[in-house]
Amino acid sequence: MSSVLKENEVGIYALGGLGEIGKNMYCIEYLNQIFIVDCGLLFPDERLLGIDAIVPDFTYLKENESKIVGLFITHGHEDHIGGIPYLLQQVKIKKIYASGVAVELIQDKLSEIALDKPNIIEYKSNHKFKFNDITVSFIRMTHSIPDAFAICFHTPYGNIIHSGDFKFDFTPLGPATEYDKLTRLSDEGVLCLLADSTNALVEGFTISERKVYSSLRDIFDHIEGRALIATFASNLYRVQQIIDISIKFKRHVAVFGRSMEKTIEIGQNAGLIKAKKDTFITADQINNYPPNQVTILCTGSQGEPLAALSRIANGTHKFIKTIPGDTVIFSSSPIPGNNAGVNKTINQLFRNGVNVITNSPLTDVHTSGHAASGELKLMQSLVKPKHFIPIHGEYRMLVAHMAIAMECGCRPDNIFVIDNGTVVAFSDEGARIAGSVHTGLTYIDGTIVGDLNSAIIKERRILSEDGMVSIVVTINEKSKEIMMEPTIISRGFVYMKSSEDLTKQIATTAYYHAREELDKSQSINQVAIKNVIINNVAKLIEDKTNRKPLIIVSTMIV
Amino acid sequence: MSSVLKENEVGIYALGGLGEIGKNMYCIEYLNQIFIVDCGLLFPDERLLGIDAIVPDFTYLKENESKIVGLFITHGHEDHIGGIPYLLQQVKIKKIYASGVAVELIQDKLSEIALDKPNIIEYKSNHKFKFNDITVSFIRMTHSIPDAFAICFHTPYGNIIHSGDFKFDFTPLGPATEYDKLTRLSDEGVLCLLADSTNALVEGFTISERKVYSSLRDIFDHIEGRALIATFASNLYRVQQIIDISIKFKRHVAVFGRSMEKTIEIGQNAGLIKAKKDTFITADQINNYPPNQVTILCTGSQGEPLAALSRIANGTHKFIKTIPGDTVIFSSSPIPGNNAGVNKTINQLFRNGVNVITNSPLTDVHTSGHAASGELKLMQSLVKPKHFIPIHGEYRMLVAHMAIAMECGCRPDNIFVIDNGTVVAFSDEGARIAGSVHTGLTYIDGTIVGDLNSAIIKERRILSEDGMVSIVVTINEKSKEIMMEPTIISRGFVYMKSSEDLTKQIATTAYYHAREELDKSQSINQVAIKNVIINNVAKLIEDKTNRKPLIIVSTMIV
Repeated sequence: MSSVLKENEVGIYALGGLGEIGKNMYCIEYLNQIFIVDCGLLFPDERLLGIDAIVPDFTYLKENESKIVGLFITHGHEDHIGGIPYLLQQVKIKKIYASGVAVELIQDKLSEIALDKPNIIEYKSNHKFKFNDITVSFIRMTHSIPDAFAICFHTPYGNIIHSGDFKFDFTPLGPATEYDKLTRLSDEGVLCLLADSTNALVEGFTISERKVYSSLRDIFDHIEGRALIATFASNLYRVQQIIDISIKFKRHVAVFGRSMEKTIEIGQNAGLIKAKKDTFITADQINNYPPNQVTILCTGSQGEPLAALSRIANGTHKFIKTIPGDTVIFSSSPIPGNNAGVNKTINQLFRNGVNVITNSPLTDVHTSGHAASGELKLMQSLVKPKHFIPIHGEYRMLVAHMAIAMECGCRPDNIFVIDNGTVVAFSDEGARIAGSVHTGLTYIDGTIVGDLNSAIIKERRILSEDGMVSIVVTINEKSKEIMMEPTIISRGFVYMKSSEDLTKQIATTAYYHAREELDKSQSINQVAIKNVIINNVAKLIEDKTNRKPLIIVSTMIV
Repeated sequence: MSSVLKENEVGIYALGGLGEIGKNMYCIEYLNQIFIVDCGLLFPDERLLGIDAIVPDFTYLKENESKIVGLFITHGHEDHIGGIPYLLQQVKIKKIYASGVAVELIQDKLSEIALDKPNIIEYKSNHKFKFNDITVSFIRMTHSIPDAFAICFHTPYGNIIHSGDFKFDFTPLGPATEYDKLTRLSDEGVLCLLADSTNALVEGFTISERKVYSSLRDIFDHIEGRALIATFASNLYRVQQIIDISIKFKRHVAVFGRSMEKTIEIGQNAGLIKAKKDTFITADQINNYPPNQVTILCTGSQGEPLAALSRIANGTHKFIKTIPGDTVIFSSSPIPGNNAGVNKTINQLFRNGVNVITNSPLTDVHTSGHAASGELKLMQSLVKPKHFIPIHGEYRMLVAHMAIAMECGCRPDNIFVIDNGTVVAFSDEGARIAGSVHTGLTYIDGTIVGDLNSAIIKERRILSEDGMVSIVVTINEKSKEIMMEPTIISRGFVYMKSSEDLTKQIATTAYYHAREELDKSQSINQVAIKNVIINNVAKLIEDKTNRKPLIIVSTMIV
């Protein structure tokens, strides 16, 4: 595969993350070196079709494996690291550069797969790595998970800064953004900025994580029974706040949900989760304490049917049921697509007669990890990039982010709102769209990777909407006789007991057209028989029911 | 079916509409008379399973057909009238009472079905109907469709008021709410109020429809190209506003989308849509006018894939494509569940390089038709009901509405937050939960009503997630020989070409276990053979793929 880049051009392109929220994967390519930034998952809308996740199509990287310098991770969220196990199954990656809690989360992922493990190199904020003409450095940012970084690629044509996911939290709970590094890189000259567009359509500034602390503290101050609180497990700052506030109000903390338990374990190892020795209690200890001394910290803030909070709400949790006086706090907001699930859980909690507190401008029990338009303007002002590529967002967000960059003085010609695969090339002669590399998506279902193609997904869609009808026709090879009435079985189609007429008509139609086809020639043409049955039965069924089930025909020649 | 009511008790119950937004159907029952209020549809979340709509289970009404006095319609929205054709297929309804545009919309619905049509009686605001001890009267309200009414049932124990869907629009475009009637009914004594809870969780007051007029006017004042505007077809006030503003700015209006065309036709017949003679133009006339003299009014405000705006956006519309300079206005907000579809359309429009304006506090190009908490407090204050039943909402909304009623002085003991089917009975002795009547839901798919039971829906869910595998085993009746290798066909499961091994293993497993089962007895037990194959193949497939496809086995005995 020859590159679309001219010699001496620096190329920037995405294999995922443009025009979507998820499966982030960006590449910087120069003189036969490919630097990959992140490798994430996308959670699909249509869970009913059995797709667990979607990762980028890694074909381009497979074909250019020898050029890959390493995979650089900005932070440990699933949409940035979730694709790594699938990448490693297909592409040899020698080195992964990651920092802090992201290292732990990646190691945890890799522990579950049997593969040659890549070397994970833990970078610190002040580290620099040199690869021929490119030096890589890091800028600490603030986000909804600790250890989130922007990454700078120092090229002969100037600095390329990838923002990672960020917000400018002026009163963060962890270390602050390294503003000085951003302005220093700006002084050196920023060839191109790639920046997070998630909240480009949101006005103003995102609320600080510290505001959430005071909101939760005020709410806990008034809770008289048990406090049940659900949040994103990966937000270790939030988890620590909840622990701190519980300790402050003399509550013990019981933790439920696999990802929450894992996060707390990882957080404790990394020194990010700190609690007095007797803070944590187990399920069977909860009843040793009065309700006002118990906090239940759990997963399920997105209404996922199998998560701890959903089970607690609908009475199927192994250890916990709601009791009168409980207060449930959703320290979260529903990711678009999850609203129905979250509302279902909330309705159930109200039915159980407990108090429910969700995030709103009145409660402030959650805040986003992504920069709103005010912060994006600050980013432009600090970095003053010559060129700009909005990343990490749906198309409308990328367009809004472009408008923000223009307001801040970036020249319209120097802004590239592009799709996955489009290669922007930089050299002394300026910037140009150089062409594109292969991109696509790979479905993940169960433990099998990439055996789901779009034909199978299309079949599932038909099956899900109208079900299927199976027809078996048995033919005597010698006499060409149809040996019995065709067998009809349907699933997900109509209630067969009340449709005996229809079943009979399907069998008759199949018999008639098979007979006619058999009479046409000397030999038995199974393909022709199947086709003629499928076409005529489909017509019959659509006439009678207005449905289009998937029809399969087996011809048994005996 | 004997009633749970004691003689002389007035009963109130819902067959749909409680704990959900949709399929509204409420009943007032007294002395062997049943008064039905509304008969609506519910649009399901999970469109993938091929369910077009859900209506209430009408069993109770069928069993008590002789008691039914009539069906009283509050207004013409689908969640209030959409179930009528399905009700009429199952239950004899002699009279439907409806007003204004609701009459037209119901007649249009009934024109498509071949049935004994009920008598549609058009009521006016000042009409009264007397049925033995019960008199029915009407109170004009404001809502997002013209001719929306509250209905009062005057009983020996006091007035029962059903609010219908409403907002208090103090500056409405159509006739105002009849506040005087509400207070007069209050003076007479209101036994029970049933009121719309849709926006009980929304603070303050809903924006007036008139504010939308001025917002749209200001936006149109600045549009230089064509204006494409999508809204809910049933909101005839909005449609008229768009026509008025177009005329003001010397634009001609082209209308696209079946429901929008129908609404305008109905609206013109009813005198609700008024336009100068040459206002409307057809698709082929659009190019006769410069872009700034064209408004395109269309369906698709919910991102429905087949609606006009979606087709225009993705380039598949028969007549219209976007052109640079177009401005697209969504005079709507996405109904929860439709966000993804709406955003897909918006992203596509941005890709086409056109301007897009959506509703927000900055644009006010849409407003809700439902009362927010401030208006609900006004309703309580005007009506001062003794008892209160919050209706038309998810459970969390009903609970919020209960809190509002309590704030306004309604006694907690007199408020009933109930489920569909629960019967509240009133008499001189007060109010009590008397029991419940049968309720449930009926799925509508294609033209067939009610043949989809939950078993079929469950099959579709399995098919949609993991597909299916069909196995055909042919057995010689005399020799009990398995006559050939079992035939395996799968759909929506795995890509079979790359899974030849698995197919082979399935066939071998089926053969082996069928053989073993055949050897067990003298006769051929087809059920036992099918079961043993299904169990063992399911185990094999789950082991190898972690999936659980639906497995069907046909045994052909020849």
